[in-house]
Amino acid sequence: MSEIAETPKPPYYAVIFSSVRTEGENSYGEMSQKMFELAREQKGFLGVESAREGLGITVSYWETLEDIANWKQNEEHLIAQQKGAELWYQSYKTRICLVERDYRFERKL
Amino acid sequence: MSEIAETPKPPYYAVIFSSVRTEGENSYGEMSQKMFELAREQKGFLGVESAREGLGITVSYWETLEDIANWKQNEEHLIAQQKGAELWYQSYKTRICLVERDYRFERKL
Repeated sequence: MSEIAETPKPPYYAVIFSSVRTEGENSYGEMSQKMFELAREQKGFLGVESAREGLGITVSYWETLEDIANWKQNEEHLIAQQKGAELWYQSYKTRICLVERDYRFERKL
Repeated sequence: MSEIAETPKPPYYAVIFSSVRTEGENSYGEMSQKMFELAREQKGFLGVESAREGLGITVSYWETLEDIANWKQNEEHLIAQQKGAELWYQSYKTRICLVERDYRFERKL
């Protein structure tokens, strides 16, 4: 997760999940890791990037809107979403985006 | 920056800037703060969210593609982009996205 996701040539989709946590761990780290692993197994998953510094930002990349809808309805993910609203998050915002263009810089060795 | 951006009803645009830093500070913090302040003054700017935890993710939100193009060509921003490639970043990826939908959760008091 500490790497830039190797996504294909656009167009593809991004889900930007911006969140503020509640106080206390409440098994958040364990669930978070489990959800990353589960997401990777889903159809259409292209990659994920995540960082938290007060605000948390997780961006997952997907082939189609249908893939995003399927992941949102995944049974284990639904349970995690419910616990998120009950326990882990003070607030969050999810944005569904079409990635139209991208470009990359890589330092020469 | 530790808050979720208060963006308007979609559609609007997001620029996802994912980066890995080089070693050393090299006045990065100062420039970074200056660029956030400068971005806020630009036409079409809607908000920004940022976090770094190994990987850095900064998402800025804009009204139109033209606003994004203008910001990319801003004179002080061009100098910062050049220093970024020369000094501050090991690698980065910029993704230009159309935000099609969003939804928010806010914990009840």
